[in-house]
Amino acid sequence: MAPVKNGKDNLSAVLYGKDDMKLEQRPIPVPRDNQVLLQMEVVGICGSDVSYLAKGVCGPFVVKDPMVIGHEASGTVVECGKNVKNLQVGDRVAIEPGVPCRICQLCKSGSYHLCQDLFFCATPPDDGNLSRYYCHDADFCWKLPDNMDMEEGAIMEPLSVGVHACKRANIKIGDVCLITGAGPIGLVTLLAAKAMGASKIVITDILDVKLKMAKQLGADYTIKIDGSLTEDQIVSKVIELLGQEPNASMDCTGVEACVRICVKSTGLAGVVVLVGLGKLEMTLPLANALIKEVDVRGVFRYCNDYPTAIEMVRSGRINVKPLVTHRYRIEDTLKAFHTARTQEGDPIKVLIYCNPNWKPS
Amino acid sequence: MAPVKNGKDNLSAVLYGKDDMKLEQRPIPVPRDNQVLLQMEVVGICGSDVSYLAKGVCGPFVVKDPMVIGHEASGTVVECGKNVKNLQVGDRVAIEPGVPCRICQLCKSGSYHLCQDLFFCATPPDDGNLSRYYCHDADFCWKLPDNMDMEEGAIMEPLSVGVHACKRANIKIGDVCLITGAGPIGLVTLLAAKAMGASKIVITDILDVKLKMAKQLGADYTIKIDGSLTEDQIVSKVIELLGQEPNASMDCTGVEACVRICVKSTGLAGVVVLVGLGKLEMTLPLANALIKEVDVRGVFRYCNDYPTAIEMVRSGRINVKPLVTHRYRIEDTLKAFHTARTQEGDPIKVLIYCNPNWKPS
Amino acid sequence: MAPVKNGKDNLSAVLYGKDDMKLEQRPIPVPRDNQVLLQMEVVGICGSDVSYLAKGVCGPFVVKDPMVIGHEASGTVVECGKNVKNLQVGDRVAIEPGVPCRICQLCKSGSYHLCQDLFFCATPPDDGNLSRYYCHDADFCWKLPDNMDMEEGAIMEPLSVGVHACKRANIKIGDVCLITGAGPIGLVTLLAAKAMGASKIVITDILDVKLKMAKQLGADYTIKIDGSLTEDQIVSKVIELLGQEPNASMDCTGVEACVRICVKSTGLAGVVVLVGLGKLEMTLPLANALIKEVDVRGVFRYCNDYPTAIEMVRSGRINVKPLVTHRYRIEDTLKAFHTARTQEGDPIKVLIYCNPNWKPS
Amino acid sequence: MAPVKNGKDNLSAVLYGKDDMKLEQRPIPVPRDNQVLLQMEVVGICGSDVSYLAKGVCGPFVVKDPMVIGHEASGTVVECGKNVKNLQVGDRVAIEPGVPCRICQLCKSGSYHLCQDLFFCATPPDDGNLSRYYCHDADFCWKLPDNMDMEEGAIMEPLSVGVHACKRANIKIGDVCLITGAGPIGLVTLLAAKAMGASKIVITDILDVKLKMAKQLGADYTIKIDGSLTEDQIVSKVIELLGQEPNASMDCTGVEACVRICVKSTGLAGVVVLVGLGKLEMTLPLANALIKEVDVRGVFRYCNDYPTAIEMVRSGRINVKPLVTHRYRIEDTLKAFHTARTQEGDPIKVLIYCNPNWKPS
Repeated sequence: MAPVKNGKDNLSAVLYGKDDMKLEQRPIPVPRDNQVLLQMEVVGICGSDVSYLAKGVCGPFVVKDPMVIGHEASGTVVECGKNVKNLQVGDRVAIEPGVPCRICQLCKSGSYHLCQDLFFCATPPDDGNLSRYYCHDADFCWKLPDNMDMEEGAIMEPLSVGVHACKRANIKIGDVCLITGAGPIGLVTLLAAKAMGASKIVITDILDVKLKMAKQLGADYTIKIDGSLTEDQIVSKVIELLGQEPNASMDCTGVEACVRICVKSTGLAGVVVLVGLGKLEMTLPLANALIKEVDVRGVFRYCNDYPTAIEMVRSGRINVKPLVTHRYRIEDTLKAFHTARTQEGDPIKVLIYCNPNWKPS
Repeated sequence: MAPVKNGKDNLSAVLYGKDDMKLEQRPIPVPRDNQVLLQMEVVGICGSDVSYLAKGVCGPFVVKDPMVIGHEASGTVVECGKNVKNLQVGDRVAIEPGVPCRICQLCKSGSYHLCQDLFFCATPPDDGNLSRYYCHDADFCWKLPDNMDMEEGAIMEPLSVGVHACKRANIKIGDVCLITGAGPIGLVTLLAAKAMGASKIVITDILDVKLKMAKQLGADYTIKIDGSLTEDQIVSKVIELLGQEPNASMDCTGVEACVRICVKSTGLAGVVVLVGLGKLEMTLPLANALIKEVDVRGVFRYCNDYPTAIEMVRSGRINVKPLVTHRYRIEDTLKAFHTARTQEGDPIKVLIYCNPNWKPS
Repeated sequence: MAPVKNGKDNLSAVLYGKDDMKLEQRPIPVPRDNQVLLQMEVVGICGSDVSYLAKGVCGPFVVKDPMVIGHEASGTVVECGKNVKNLQVGDRVAIEPGVPCRICQLCKSGSYHLCQDLFFCATPPDDGNLSRYYCHDADFCWKLPDNMDMEEGAIMEPLSVGVHACKRANIKIGDVCLITGAGPIGLVTLLAAKAMGASKIVITDILDVKLKMAKQLGADYTIKIDGSLTEDQIVSKVIELLGQEPNASMDCTGVEACVRICVKSTGLAGVVVLVGLGKLEMTLPLANALIKEVDVRGVFRYCNDYPTAIEMVRSGRINVKPLVTHRYRIEDTLKAFHTARTQEGDPIKVLIYCNPNWKPS
Repeated sequence: MAPVKNGKDNLSAVLYGKDDMKLEQRPIPVPRDNQVLLQMEVVGICGSDVSYLAKGVCGPFVVKDPMVIGHEASGTVVECGKNVKNLQVGDRVAIEPGVPCRICQLCKSGSYHLCQDLFFCATPPDDGNLSRYYCHDADFCWKLPDNMDMEEGAIMEPLSVGVHACKRANIKIGDVCLITGAGPIGLVTLLAAKAMGASKIVITDILDVKLKMAKQLGADYTIKIDGSLTEDQIVSKVIELLGQEPNASMDCTGVEACVRICVKSTGLAGVVVLVGLGKLEMTLPLANALIKEVDVRGVFRYCNDYPTAIEMVRSGRINVKPLVTHRYRIEDTLKAFHTARTQEGDPIKVLIYCNPNWKPS
């Protein structure tokens, strides 16, 4: 049975500013010709969402006007604009939250994620999609294979970051990797690296619970960062565990100390990828990278990566379900954010169900 | 008339340590099967040579035993080992000073410059070639075209650094570049960038004389760094002069302030190449590079770049002769180093002639 | 003085079918929000235009309904749609004739030229722009620098083919090239290859007049194909003239005999680029390419190449003006096509002026 | 217990010409400084070996002088030359049979497999290694991980061909592939493609037994070529089974009809890789590849691929053991070749044990 719009209920989680989020009804939007109207299904909470709630800002972005939160999302198509050809009513989709201008040189040359006129869900001033209904450009909605569920659909967003990081690092069979940070992004980067062929991965974190999850997801080795080891001792341990210097290191913390370890550890002609966005200024042993011809490459979101992310899960190469630790109804959004913010119960990925038919199991 | 060995004269410039260089006779070496014996012609003085003389060290390398100095060199083949096929007696060659192990994975995969068993002229403990005679592996001697002279042959060494930098930056037609530093390496990088298609180049330096030379060699714009502008003002000026953010920035100073300007100036999806090797630790606005997906890439010498450098000069795309400001006989090596070290007379490239038949004009 | 629409005159060259082209008035179109209305200036005649006139078809494309001809064009902006930001009234532009769908995977990944929903001027059923006025998406109109004229603007279209071919061949400094065919596309490929660094180029043709022009434009060597040499003799001559096997060969004829010479001549790890579209089936010594790991790559129009083409001319790296041999007013379109079709007067590039103010000099 | 040379027994399989192979004693060779002496363990029979025996030639190579056959091999180090650092006595190795000159431009730029002075086991006039003892350059002997046996070691040779093919095709997660030919090379290419991320693979052959093995090794779909389908029908079936045009097609037959199907099937911007070396001349619909910008790339052996091949097996990504259908002692070499030549018993990979201690199980 095809899905239908459920009356006029468009409950939406709206952020008014620091510590000020409300659930309220918004009009159900009407899709433009190239858009689809989506019944929202599952929306994950990202660190940036928490930052907007807790501080009213995330990096350079400031919440000035009320904004619907949420951008790690899946949904079901309930209406198609007249020009839409790739989707039909009833299709289950993962929503890529950034929609570019399509006319600048970056868009034309295959780097649409760097478009300076990008619409991006829940990056001020653009509304997100933690709501019952939401319209999005159809070509940025990726149809889910039958063997993937809506939770996996929502997780395609963070996984795409990991995929993009591994593409930037050019991960291939036999690569030996260091990942610093075992938070959600570190973990999806780990999964992507395994899928793309990494033969050995060591991952670091300050929390045992994260390292335990990393092990479960396929990390070969873990290093707990607890202050007992100097920087050079950590570097030595990385190399000792891997049996060689990593040829690709991916920092998923944005913490200077971690980036330093990445730079120092990485072997000749290797790559350091910066995934985590931390403080603006960092003091790094860059001469060390120079003489090794190690490239330092940044990762900004993703671009043409959703298909790869979906294929990784569809094919069974990776399993993202263990990342999901908490599930809430949209009516309990504030509770969900409390969990994500306080880290009570050691959450990894907190998901919110927008579909009113969902019942917690 | 084929060149012949000139009796037993092998006058050589030997560095014994800090401030201790002597001219002395050394035995004329015998080429191995895959080597040629060269009558040395022209040897340029590099900043590293000056560093060894002035400090006894250069970066991590320390002069412990007496070492013949010199590695920017050209010569004439006077004898060929029995396996040599690519050269014959009388050939005039530019000498690529690094000879790799040929068996490690880096050698096999086309990155021989990163080989950890590299022989490199005048990097301790390997002897250089500021002498009358010198033996070198024939395949690292590049035959000079008829329209190139021995001075140009010697300059192929620094030019190869510029070529390698521009290859790492992937310079192509229409690129807009920032080069920080107009010393010899900044200038050869400028020449290589022009040859490879850069449409606009702004170059910085602290000395007017260097900027003047840069202009003469083809820089479109120059910025004098004299303390009157803040970092952000310099960045603004770079962008204003170029009419856009550079898509490739190449630091040829190794100075933190310059690398910072490169990182801040470079546009989306651009590249910052680090050519100059400076202090180990640098504080940089790396988050700025991350969100722009600007790559930071080091340059370590060169690899498969001599043929490109030679072709640039042979074809008339660039003219390296203006770089040569001073010429000395090998007998006057100490004077030559005095000039290079004190910068008296505003030298750019100081060349030493090893061939006893040379007469200063 | 800003250009203004010249009353209601929109004289247009409309092809009704084989040997049936008429000049007729058409309504002046109204630009959409992202379009500009252009006063057309110069339109070149392409081989495909001649094919449509002479045969009613070109490759798989058939003229079924009346179609305005012309796609190698420049114009002046006379009106901007409300969303246009990159252009303003009075801007002089080169018109890239293909406008893609912007939403398929090829568009998103930087290969918009392969988009299967491409609008392309004067490829049935899409109207071209040999007319007084024409509307086009603003982001596919490339502003001309002050030092380029409208003729050069029109020639950016064929030059972009040459640029794309050379990018596919990865032409760089020192490359040694074979180009088969010295027609307009062979000549622009020659120009692009020189600009991108080719050190030696040999070009072939069956007509002396074309080879003479090729020489004038920078070909190092020419080979006249007149039946006096066997295939292998031609291959030998290519290698003898170049002093080595070419590392890049570009066929601009679509003729089997020429492609065979390209494949046989090209050296180890080289590239053969197919620019000329000829008969569907070709018998080739492909095993020869296989064991040399020579890539055979096709070229379909261009993609992100207009900026490079414009920069080549702006910077003075190449001069396309010698290509222009004939100029006509739009009123004399039939005469212009007669010249292009009969090759009377040895035309290379035949241009038609659409601006009524133009006077033949 | 370290292995020791077993007296003076160096039984070797020597090919004297067409249909003339003998087992005879040869002196045990002495390793040069950079070589190891190997106790040979397992040697596979390749199609080229059979060709030399059956015809005295393979492609352009002719057996003129007696030549030891065999090049798909594993062995155990029994003696090291004095300069060998990467191996020690007792190490079990896969032997990469080609050793390049190390000094030409192809060697220096990472394409040593195209070196024109390559030594290659059992390519005339170079001796192979189907013998008790054999010396080889140590850097072309790849140490086997503990979890790999000598049979897998020998199979690294054909697997490296498949790895190289997939690297040339740039296989990555989500790729959709056509492989024509399910002989040993087709099958290892299939395995490599799966390991590198291909999501769907259709493979063709004329024999059911090969297609059955392909299915077992992971092919998603098979097409039996039996004359009942036209070329275009096969192309349609490929696309229908895959649900789209393949973006990479790899011909492992060298048969024109198969290459044609690859060219016609492959989608926009895709790649056709030619692995199988067949007749010199082929008639192909190359214009079809041109307008799709499909690259046609040859594969010549392998280069820097052994580490990847070994890692694929070590990590458990693929299992090559099912390929082994027949095992013989070196004393039964003629029987082994009879099986490979007649295809009696439907052999895929026929292996010969050189170690006298081996007992057939």
